[in-house]
Amino acid sequence: VTVHLVGAGPGDPGLITARGLDLVRACDVLVYDVLVSPELVAEAPADALLISRAPLRQAEIDGLLVEYGRAGLDVVRLKGGDPFVFGRGGEEALALAAAGIPFTVTPGVSSIAAVPSAAMIPVTHRGVSDRVTIANGHGVPDDPEALTTALARGGGTIVLFMGLERLGELVSGLVAAGLDPSTPAAVVANGTLPRQEIVSGAVDELAELASALPTPALVVIGDVVDVGRRLRAAAERHHAVVA
Amino acid sequence: VTVHLVGAGPGDPGLITARGLDLVRACDVLVYDVLVSPELVAEAPADALLISRAPLRQAEIDGLLVEYGRAGLDVVRLKGGDPFVFGRGGEEALALAAAGIPFTVTPGVSSIAAVPSAAMIPVTHRGVSDRVTIANGHGVPDDPEALTTALARGGGTIVLFMGLERLGELVSGLVAAGLDPSTPAAVVANGTLPRQEIVSGAVDELAELASALPTPALVVIGDVVDVGRRLRAAAERHHAVVA
Repeated sequence: VTVHLVGAGPGDPGLITARGLDLVRACDVLVYDVLVSPELVAEAPADALLISRAPLRQAEIDGLLVEYGRAGLDVVRLKGGDPFVFGRGGEEALALAAAGIPFTVTPGVSSIAAVPSAAMIPVTHRGVSDRVTIANGHGVPDDPEALTTALARGGGTIVLFMGLERLGELVSGLVAAGLDPSTPAAVVANGTLPRQEIVSGAVDELAELASALPTPALVVIGDVVDVGRRLRAAAERHHAVVA
Repeated sequence: VTVHLVGAGPGDPGLITARGLDLVRACDVLVYDVLVSPELVAEAPADALLISRAPLRQAEIDGLLVEYGRAGLDVVRLKGGDPFVFGRGGEEALALAAAGIPFTVTPGVSSIAAVPSAAMIPVTHRGVSDRVTIANGHGVPDDPEALTTALARGGGTIVLFMGLERLGELVSGLVAAGLDPSTPAAVVANGTLPRQEIVSGAVDELAELASALPTPALVVIGDVVDVGRRLRAAAERHHAVVA
């Protein structure tokens, strides 16, 4: 008799939380994102109602959660990454709150650190970066210049969720706003999955390097990218299995 | 025959990842942080060697990981939050790489979003905030004015890991750098644990509101704090169990 907003993690099904997995295994209804691993959807009980959010608009999802919640069913809304980090979980929670439906929020491993981590890049590292700014590069921002100025002058690591078609434009904006064009940068596509791909180089050559990569992709800009490069080289040398 | 750097999550033992829990349950040696839940330490095999990092310096931890890794044991280094987010996981990974010891990194749920989430605060929310900057407020930054200027002018949500004794000073710096003193803000102490405490108000009254809170604490500044206030009010009204 509760709707649970649950983070599925960044892609690899082993990265859901223990509690999130318990909730999936006990649900009556599972409403899941496109990017949620099929292995996790398969963890729902055999008689659970499975609903892909793919064909639905946000208002329809909100309506379904309210409807099944009101019917007294245990509903899991399984969302990629973390529900409250670029996940519209807040909107779903407000819709449930407005309708008087009890709900819980179970956080997930967000791509913002797990995808860099899968490329061995720590988003912070002592003596290299003591802060990180995460922004959404999808769509056209309300004020692109304000965004690039804030990112270029903020210092520390920059992490961007984005489609790659606008990467060149965004990098030009960052460099125009003062970012050193030789700053190390990387793009990680399909992060944490077996088909993960990484490119890395100076930020001003990033768009060209990444031109053949698929989406979803995550962009990391900052000196921590070089720490990742050293760790990946070591892992390859020692045939380490990289989780 | 591998050293695994594993994120334990933000405090609540249910928030470790499924893979992280599997690694703990199969290890020969468990080296764990002070803030890791005792329930997770208890998941190690009965004959595993358990080592608290509490009395150790970072160089000693690095040395232990290398030593036990070289001895051919399966070592889990269980770290609060995520190993690569303010976790010194990068330093441990570099030490292992330099010694030629194979290692893996399993990300964890970081406090940076999970603790706000436990207070029902989404760090991003459509129409409210499309970016978030996370900084470390522990210790004295190299250049406090550069930090407060970047944070105050960055726009979006600000999340700070910190002890609370310097909160007043930091807020004064932010307001001096242009942050609106009426910006909504919250401090969450012992986030995700049963003894969690939340205070919230305008940023310029935050230090006073938080003066009695214990550490560790996380500070959230930005309009998303008001979304959290609305969601907590709804949860209380409907007697929802808040995960």
